[in-house]
Amino acid sequence: MKVSYFNVRGLGEMIRLLLTDKQISFEDEKFTKDEWQNIKPKMQFGQVPCLSFEDEQIVQTGAIMRHLGRVHGLNGQNEQETTFIDMFFEGIRDLHSKYTTMIYQNYENGKEPFLKDVLPVELEKLEKLFKTYGNGDAFVAGAKESYADYALFEEIDVLLVLSQSALDHFPKLKNFHYRFSQRPNLKAYLSKRASLNVPINGNGKQ
Amino acid sequence: MKVSYFNVRGLGEMIRLLLTDKQISFEDEKFTKDEWQNIKPKMQFGQVPCLSFEDEQIVQTGAIMRHLGRVHGLNGQNEQETTFIDMFFEGIRDLHSKYTTMIYQNYENGKEPFLKDVLPVELEKLEKLFKTYGNGDAFVAGAKESYADYALFEEIDVLLVLSQSALDHFPKLKNFHYRFSQRPNLKAYLSKRASLNVPINGNGKQ
Repeated sequence: MKVSYFNVRGLGEMIRLLLTDKQISFEDEKFTKDEWQNIKPKMQFGQVPCLSFEDEQIVQTGAIMRHLGRVHGLNGQNEQETTFIDMFFEGIRDLHSKYTTMIYQNYENGKEPFLKDVLPVELEKLEKLFKTYGNGDAFVAGAKESYADYALFEEIDVLLVLSQSALDHFPKLKNFHYRFSQRPNLKAYLSKRASLNVPINGNGKQ
Repeated sequence: MKVSYFNVRGLGEMIRLLLTDKQISFEDEKFTKDEWQNIKPKMQFGQVPCLSFEDEQIVQTGAIMRHLGRVHGLNGQNEQETTFIDMFFEGIRDLHSKYTTMIYQNYENGKEPFLKDVLPVELEKLEKLFKTYGNGDAFVAGAKESYADYALFEEIDVLLVLSQSALDHFPKLKNFHYRFSQRPNLKAYLSKRASLNVPINGNGKQ
């Protein structure tokens, strides 16, 4: 199994985190913007991340994450949980889309308004939803982890780089982030990643 | 079961099409922009469409469609098909997002460049992917319909309003659109919808 993406965290990182945490062996193909020109035409939508097997090539971040969720028991324990996880994941992606618009199109003038006006509103929704299952002291869907946890962890991790105090009013999310970062496989990976200085976004802003 | 959305086609229409075609009974709640102010705070992400049951409220278009896909046998017959359908659906949504950006932010100056430069490139990808299963003469995933077919049909239908000739170089997609429009339950619905003049987008542009 191979994960193909730029040498940044971007949309690929949640896939790497899931595979690393679950100890699923994969080749981590990271390419430069120059190399991308040769890879782009081979992708169904001209986009990455891509997860490929000998006889199958999956693109679209959501499709990849849901596939891994189904195959590795990270997709909820019944239809209601599966739908909730999907909904939560899509909510995270909506937030990420607002984040990347700011990062790529309006970082200098947009960062402060994003932190002040956008982020608290969006995080409030996730904090509230996070309490739906159980007491919000475990994972997105309660006692058992799901693919949405990796997306949530990466999203919070990136937001904490944008502003160390971003999570101060959202104790459940902050606590989740800390607990998740302590999972042994992730802890080792995160430590290594920090030493490699892997950029968060393609334009170097964060 | 109730579908709640504005009185436009927008993101809600693919849900209505699926339920109508499969003869799944539902209440079609359509509200005005004024009424929306009272509904918005009840939605998990402050957005619609919403699919609700007595004890559950599902938001996020993708999560709703995938839920209906799973529950009503419209989600592929094995893991590979399920993933392909998911990927195809996400590709349609990427195109729709480009379409709505043009419609809502740059219709007057953006329509012609969209038709000339964006649309042919995007449709070429879908036309090619549409041939993956079978000969591309049936549905997205071959012989059996899936939830992605409803999204694809609605997308093409909307594009043909934008430009009658939009599909001229994409025979598989054009043929799919015609065939799908002839399904008895859909045909009756589409005819009624036309007589009601339901707007495609919230700003009246199309």
